[in-house]
Amino acid sequence: MRVLGLDPGTSATGWGLVAFEEGRLSLVRCGVWRPPARLELPARLDFLFRAASETVDAERPDAVSIETVFTARNVASTLKLTHARGVLLLAAARGGAPVHEYAPRLVKKCLTGWGAAEKSQVRAMVLSLLARQRGRVALDAADALALAICHIHAAPPRLSGAVIPARA
Amino acid sequence: MRVLGLDPGTSATGWGLVAFEEGRLSLVRCGVWRPPARLELPARLDFLFRAASETVDAERPDAVSIETVFTARNVASTLKLTHARGVLLLAAARGGAPVHEYAPRLVKKCLTGWGAAEKSQVRAMVLSLLARQRGRVALDAADALALAICHIHAAPPRLSGAVIPARA
Repeated sequence: MRVLGLDPGTSATGWGLVAFEEGRLSLVRCGVWRPPARLELPARLDFLFRAASETVDAERPDAVSIETVFTARNVASTLKLTHARGVLLLAAARGGAPVHEYAPRLVKKCLTGWGAAEKSQVRAMVLSLLARQRGRVALDAADALALAICHIHAAPPRLSGAVIPARA
Repeated sequence: MRVLGLDPGTSATGWGLVAFEEGRLSLVRCGVWRPPARLELPARLDFLFRAASETVDAERPDAVSIETVFTARNVASTLKLTHARGVLLLAAARGGAPVHEYAPRLVKKCLTGWGAAEKSQVRAMVLSLLARQRGRVALDAADALALAICHIHAAPPRLSGAVIPARA
């Protein structure tokens, strides 16, 4: 099972692909897409759509995990983020990857056991779970990896093919 | 000059193409894109993106005119609308059409002379300017046509090629 986590933003969109095989989590690839600052919103969205489409096509994730959109204190930045979220959901749909969304508090709780955890605590837990050194993962990418891990924890295990007899 | 107006929504997106030639406005095509109600958000966005891309590719508008996003009383519907707006801006960017945005009050003022005009007044003015019968244009399409007309009114006339000598 391979899950692509996405942390949308029009200035920086974090992404991270996590694999879960034989009960073990591992980091496949991660990074941050940063549209050039001189671009206007439509061109930024095109930049993000291309990057997300290429990643979905290349990596063929089983699922995409993204934060639920919420009205932050700064409404203007929430609206920008929502435009970016729209084109990321589009890239997932066109690549055939089902999308799952998780509330920020649930992601924090899933990773640290506490819904109001600091960003740095979440990042430390992501790095620990993926057995990575602190310096090797950007902060925006760590948020995306947390979303991917949260989906792997939340998703029911795949059917193994074993049949439980109705009457033993 | 041909301008495509877009009135975004995840249930219904109005669109309308208006031509301005020899000082005369005319309706080229208009309609409403309605993603099937059973679709989830990513698939709805895909439906709208395909429809908008096909229209931009087929009609090659000189510009796209869209409402500025604003925080309506219903935040949930504003956020849905903003996802749709994201994929419409993407379709414009990929089709090479520059995007212009206008505040709702400005569109109303442009069409009726009054920024707080009723929706029905705007629609009546659109139909009058385009010399159309009331029954032939859907309400969502009329909003899109109003945006296109507003851009045509706001846009400076194209350079005619005439040169004004620096010193007569």
